[in-house]
Amino acid sequence: MTEQVILKAGRGTAIRLRAGQRLAIVNTHGTQVVDCWALNTGDHAEHMSMPHCRNQWYRLIPRPGDLLVTNLRNPILRLIADTSPGIHDTLIPCCDLTRYHQLGIKGHHASCAENFTAALRGIGTEQALAPAPLNLFMNVPLKANGALAVAPPDSKPGDQVEFEAEMDCVVVLSACPHDIFPVNGADCRPKDVAYTVR
Amino acid sequence: MTEQVILKAGRGTAIRLRAGQRLAIVNTHGTQVVDCWALNTGDHAEHMSMPHCRNQWYRLIPRPGDLLVTNLRNPILRLIADTSPGIHDTLIPCCDLTRYHQLGIKGHHASCAENFTAALRGIGTEQALAPAPLNLFMNVPLKANGALAVAPPDSKPGDQVEFEAEMDCVVVLSACPHDIFPVNGADCRPKDVAYTVR
Repeated sequence: MTEQVILKAGRGTAIRLRAGQRLAIVNTHGTQVVDCWALNTGDHAEHMSMPHCRNQWYRLIPRPGDLLVTNLRNPILRLIADTSPGIHDTLIPCCDLTRYHQLGIKGHHASCAENFTAALRGIGTEQALAPAPLNLFMNVPLKANGALAVAPPDSKPGDQVEFEAEMDCVVVLSACPHDIFPVNGADCRPKDVAYTVR
Repeated sequence: MTEQVILKAGRGTAIRLRAGQRLAIVNTHGTQVVDCWALNTGDHAEHMSMPHCRNQWYRLIPRPGDLLVTNLRNPILRLIADTSPGIHDTLIPCCDLTRYHQLGIKGHHASCAENFTAALRGIGTEQALAPAPLNLFMNVPLKANGALAVAPPDSKPGDQVEFEAEMDCVVVLSACPHDIFPVNGADCRPKDVAYTVR
């Protein structure tokens, strides 16, 4: 097992996994959303796909034991453990600069979309557009009238999820830099998270 | 206004719209799901995106007046009228051959994914993989425990939705060929629909 690696607040990283390896993501402070993608190592056009996952689960949110599948319906990860209350999001896209401009930010703002592209560039891959991520720990309550909201995460410090790779893949993580809505906690302050690979 | 065009059961088509043109899609028999995509004419990598639409609406399903936006968060269509009960789906991917094989079909089966690729090929564009569509009239009840189901459409014969193009775009429609679950009505029989452009 590797030592725990810190993923700094608002930053992203790309992690190569071989089939059978396990990745645990720790919500160190309990309130940080982590956008998560997975791409087939051999063909990055094949990626973990939330619509196909929902069709696989017939649920909005994965539970331990669930397979996460690609846009070609192949298993890429399996959620094997989740010590959080199990609230994650599969509905909302990653934040991007355009979204921050819509929210009133002028000029540059870090974003999960930028983190995705930069993390992949760091391992020698160009990919301008991010697929819809699995937003770990993100709390998007769905009301009876069909309305969605964004609320602070329901997780506690140290809560973690663990995945096992079902194929050789690249997992990209982004500790979401959103600091306008309470996506990353009531204090609207992005925080560090951590991960281990074994 | 063009005459009404029949889209045969289980088939697809690509329709070029200029900004400001309107497309009405008629559920002739009331129970047919129509998968709907829209691509920027000038750059097909920019396409209507259900995750970005949900972020725009803060709802799962569009209502008349709602903008449908792309993966770059630009408006591409606006839903301007809906005479159906307003039940559509933004959660489930289009059916594809792999899905039919998972459901026990041997050999070939028509699919919305194949219709998407074939319709675009018919206008000179190659695109192997379909984005997640807006599944018009598709009834995916979401239970309180988070479980999704697939139920027959709640619409009536002649119900229609109308869109206005917000940019020059190609709309692809597929009258879903699914005949295993009651996606397209309790009789599991795909049926013709129709559309007009004006």
